[in-house]
Amino acid sequence: MESYCFGIDVGGTTVKCGLFHTDGTLLEKWEIPTRTENQGKEILPDVADTIEAKIAERGIDKAVVKGVGVGIPGPVNGQGEVLCAVNLFWGFTPAAKELSELTGLPAMAGNDANVAALGEAWKGAAEGSKNVIMVTLGTGVGGGIIVDGKILSGHHGAGGEIGHAAMNHQETDSCNCGNKGCLEQYTSATGIVRVALQELASGSEESVLRTVEKLTAKDVLDAYKAGDAAAVRIMEKVGDILGGALAVFSCVADPETIVVGGGVSKAGQPLIDCIQKYYQKYAFSLCKETSIVTAQLGNDAGIYGAARLVLQDA
Amino acid sequence: MESYCFGIDVGGTTVKCGLFHTDGTLLEKWEIPTRTENQGKEILPDVADTIEAKIAERGIDKAVVKGVGVGIPGPVNGQGEVLCAVNLFWGFTPAAKELSELTGLPAMAGNDANVAALGEAWKGAAEGSKNVIMVTLGTGVGGGIIVDGKILSGHHGAGGEIGHAAMNHQETDSCNCGNKGCLEQYTSATGIVRVALQELASGSEESVLRTVEKLTAKDVLDAYKAGDAAAVRIMEKVGDILGGALAVFSCVADPETIVVGGGVSKAGQPLIDCIQKYYQKYAFSLCKETSIVTAQLGNDAGIYGAARLVLQDA
Repeated sequence: MESYCFGIDVGGTTVKCGLFHTDGTLLEKWEIPTRTENQGKEILPDVADTIEAKIAERGIDKAVVKGVGVGIPGPVNGQGEVLCAVNLFWGFTPAAKELSELTGLPAMAGNDANVAALGEAWKGAAEGSKNVIMVTLGTGVGGGIIVDGKILSGHHGAGGEIGHAAMNHQETDSCNCGNKGCLEQYTSATGIVRVALQELASGSEESVLRTVEKLTAKDVLDAYKAGDAAAVRIMEKVGDILGGALAVFSCVADPETIVVGGGVSKAGQPLIDCIQKYYQKYAFSLCKETSIVTAQLGNDAGIYGAARLVLQDA
Repeated sequence: MESYCFGIDVGGTTVKCGLFHTDGTLLEKWEIPTRTENQGKEILPDVADTIEAKIAERGIDKAVVKGVGVGIPGPVNGQGEVLCAVNLFWGFTPAAKELSELTGLPAMAGNDANVAALGEAWKGAAEGSKNVIMVTLGTGVGGGIIVDGKILSGHHGAGGEIGHAAMNHQETDSCNCGNKGCLEQYTSATGIVRVALQELASGSEESVLRTVEKLTAKDVLDAYKAGDAAAVRIMEKVGDILGGALAVFSCVADPETIVVGGGVSKAGQPLIDCIQKYYQKYAFSLCKETSIVTAQLGNDAGIYGAARLVLQDA
């Protein structure tokens, strides 16, 4: 008999939901709003309601539903307990336990970036790899580490928080986290713009970037792909820091595949080539040939990974 | 009925052997020479022979021996296959499989530094911690990462090769591995001496270290503990690099405990305090209070960890 599971990705404004066959086939996806009122206490009941409704709508026997996995934007420990989730207005929340009680189904929870990495390792860019590092270059920089096919949550649920690896002890600007020199300050979309403005100010070569009124990371990457000299200088600096950081992370986790996701990764192969050049320069000999690829599942990585969470010990 | 296991730590000159109860009690330890002649082909048969002899000597029923774990000085993957082991003159060697065939017992193999970390996590300085980073400061710098109580071997068996994390992209001297700027170049016993000679040359303060003919890491650490100004400057630099590197590794693995071992760690609490100061400066907020401790098992860490290898799924 066919069996099912649900993968849920809770964001600050919407909750993405997926119904899957346990072989990883996505049958249907939909969204519900994230109700953050009342300290976000409605969120998990809303998730339970939409799951119950979907089960009823499809006439699925609940006995063949293996469970519900959920990705949460905050640190989550190995017991599926959320330490806090600022965007959901949550303090400590035993999300897996609560969701299991609400649905009557086995439930698991993980950090959203970690869960996305698990999704890419299951059915995305790193399919078939048991050991994966994913770095997500968006407004901030997130990450997830997959070891032997499972999320590395760590003791405080901070496993894979690679955006806050301090890569530059000489930095004088502060990161949003309060530290100085975090990877995020150079390689997020906003970080790339920050580096770009510094590099443009420190040189005087002609550049299309000097004509742009409100510079974005996409402007920098488009100019880089077009061979603009200043953009090349900017991205070589970004690539040195990101490739160097990934080389350090590889000394810890020795992945088979490194996945680069997030909005910045839409720049595609030229970005990957730039990262890989510096990764290979700095990586330990055994790890120099580790493949670096762009993410494939986009915004669906979270629901795939969340679904996978409940199948890990199956 | 009591049950037993063996923990074996293969070094370049001697093989350390331990007979354990499966509760982790070390019953007896002994050594045999490492016979590296004939491309090291005698090593595993010698190990099997000494195990057989010990079982016979003690009149142990082989049915209550749970297995043999072995630590090897080289990269070992999750299947217990050694990629190479220079000091043993080994190329690719399926050590776990061969040792199992030779002994008729279940066998597991791991990298020696990883296995030592597992030993400290089982019965040493990190007893009770499921997530551990160990860094071993000896002639070189080794390491081991324990995730959910198990060794992180990684795809190429290079998991925990943190001595070769490239922490300084400006370095001009080469590491033994061929890269430049590896953690080992600053924090191994030889690395500390290298840093000391540079710092002494760059300053002119009076220092007991200027009177030492052939400087060692112990000289530097003794002078540091005595408050010698140059030694303080040297160790602040070493602490900045090591504490900073551990902070980066924590963003990946988020350990509960960080264990510092190897000869350099004999400097004790003053060294730990120096590392911790910089670790806390650079670590991600959730990980700042992670405890940093000195190793407890010394040269026995390897046999403890090797014994634990065969009990992991028990």
